[in-house]
Amino acid sequence: MNRQWIYARRPEGAVTTDIFELQLTDLPQPAPGEALVRVKIISVDPANRAWMQGRTYRPQLQPGEVMGGFGLGEVIASNTPQLRPGDLVDGDFGWRDYLTVRPDQVTKRDPRHAPEHLVGVLGITGLTAYFGLFDVGRPVAGETVMVSAAAGAVGSVAGQLARIAGCRVIGVTGGQAKCDWITGTLGFDAALDYKAGDLKAALKEICPEGVDVYFDNTGGAPLDAALARMNVGGRIACCGNVSQYDRGGATGGPPGVPGLLVTKRIRMEGFIVTDHFARRHQAERALAGWLRDGRLKAPMDIVEGFERVPQALVDLLHGRNRGKMMIRIA
Amino acid sequence: MNRQWIYARRPEGAVTTDIFELQLTDLPQPAPGEALVRVKIISVDPANRAWMQGRTYRPQLQPGEVMGGFGLGEVIASNTPQLRPGDLVDGDFGWRDYLTVRPDQVTKRDPRHAPEHLVGVLGITGLTAYFGLFDVGRPVAGETVMVSAAAGAVGSVAGQLARIAGCRVIGVTGGQAKCDWITGTLGFDAALDYKAGDLKAALKEICPEGVDVYFDNTGGAPLDAALARMNVGGRIACCGNVSQYDRGGATGGPPGVPGLLVTKRIRMEGFIVTDHFARRHQAERALAGWLRDGRLKAPMDIVEGFERVPQALVDLLHGRNRGKMMIRIA
Repeated sequence: MNRQWIYARRPEGAVTTDIFELQLTDLPQPAPGEALVRVKIISVDPANRAWMQGRTYRPQLQPGEVMGGFGLGEVIASNTPQLRPGDLVDGDFGWRDYLTVRPDQVTKRDPRHAPEHLVGVLGITGLTAYFGLFDVGRPVAGETVMVSAAAGAVGSVAGQLARIAGCRVIGVTGGQAKCDWITGTLGFDAALDYKAGDLKAALKEICPEGVDVYFDNTGGAPLDAALARMNVGGRIACCGNVSQYDRGGATGGPPGVPGLLVTKRIRMEGFIVTDHFARRHQAERALAGWLRDGRLKAPMDIVEGFERVPQALVDLLHGRNRGKMMIRIA
Repeated sequence: MNRQWIYARRPEGAVTTDIFELQLTDLPQPAPGEALVRVKIISVDPANRAWMQGRTYRPQLQPGEVMGGFGLGEVIASNTPQLRPGDLVDGDFGWRDYLTVRPDQVTKRDPRHAPEHLVGVLGITGLTAYFGLFDVGRPVAGETVMVSAAAGAVGSVAGQLARIAGCRVIGVTGGQAKCDWITGTLGFDAALDYKAGDLKAALKEICPEGVDVYFDNTGGAPLDAALARMNVGGRIACCGNVSQYDRGGATGGPPGVPGLLVTKRIRMEGFIVTDHFARRHQAERALAGWLRDGRLKAPMDIVEGFERVPQALVDLLHGRNRGKMMIRIA
């Protein structure tokens, strides 16, 4: 049998687990040219929520579809010479145990790495941090880098990479416990609690010299604070807008745009990790090297069991995770 | 005698002429190392209004100061070998007949060009269009370029430059008359009247293939419309925010930021013309060549008389000019 979570209805405001419905189906059969994949780990990401809001770099999720989501799986049967039983592959597999794929829908992964790392720091998460920071933010050693959602999967890696690149790193996260964790365990130079009051004033105090690169996972208040504090020639790598995902209607954008972009000559640039995949292997090698050296930690929040996937997404959207959240289902 | 307009009080909302006061003073005397400049043409620019709102790339204007403003003048006496009587110079001279300057406060200009062109298409205005379009927007022949405030000084040049670079050009301006003028006289491919209703829908109709480069002089509704229409990989050159200058309190920013920047991988980048002055002469040569060839028109709105400077700024902020507005005072 194949279990799958159906995206049954649009959320009114914040996502609740009852918008998903569990469905049991027969095992799908691979057609000629296809392979059968058994999903082992499902990645839970803020982007899952954005896909419900509208068209992004993928079509909008429609009620009745299998819930979308990145994952790591193993080929267990194949009708194509390009995929062989035992191959480890990743892709947008959705929340299910089994699916059939064409070779162009998956990426083969190196089985010498831990599967959790392939999903996290050596997967989309780590690559997003790497390309967003280095190719879009382009920090120079000695500069100050600010990261929002700094205890999250991407933010926790982006901040550590900025430290490796010789920068001073300020993380924004929610609550004192996560602040202590990113400075104590992950080596951030400073942390700011966005729930603790006036973020602009706190940032000004901690960054009297301004911010050169802002890695933005959230939009909202951290973006407003960063815009006010950016130095001339500053860069904002727009990775996500998670402060706006898990809610109903749209809100206004940052009042500093475009005025402060002009007066401070700020570059604000969005990116999607897959656009940079021409350099994927180079980035993976670098990340794997730092991981091996111990210079890069790969914090993970691993949940066991297929039935817990919807709750894991709710927890993620409420900031209850530290590092990469994933669900081991096989 | 030296006439000067004092910025006497902050505007409450839109600028009115009574925030300025005319003052007569003695002729200033150049100290050693200084020269005396007679201002010939005062440039009136939307930026003049932004300087009242807060610190930009220059300190905020303070009540009691001579009103700031770019201008072209002639050296009439000098105590420095770097400036000689008869030299044409430009700089932020303010609204006055005479001032003393140090050589590092002015730029010498080539007297073989018409003085009006030195203020307009071969001055800050033309260079702003040139660097903003080519160095920030980076259009490629065949792409679609959108320009707001397209009948204004910078927009009218930016649109023509995009045509010269082989692009399709859409201009946004206010009223049917200015729409007809930018298509009929300046050669824009299409014009949109932002006063005529739903700008987003009109832009979608005229640009079914999307916008690749948006040269933003205004922020506000044209920016919102552009964000909705930008193609993946689009670029927004943030030149000004004139829709927000001539008013009281701040408004919200564009709701599409940062969400659409991420999903469409848009680069949004502010600039100030002087940052690009290392290539000033190269740009001036190119602009002068196109002007000579007749490929580039230099529309101008020339007002005569020092007493009319405040009204000219009010007219500019209400969009009553076509092309570069300047006041000939000597």
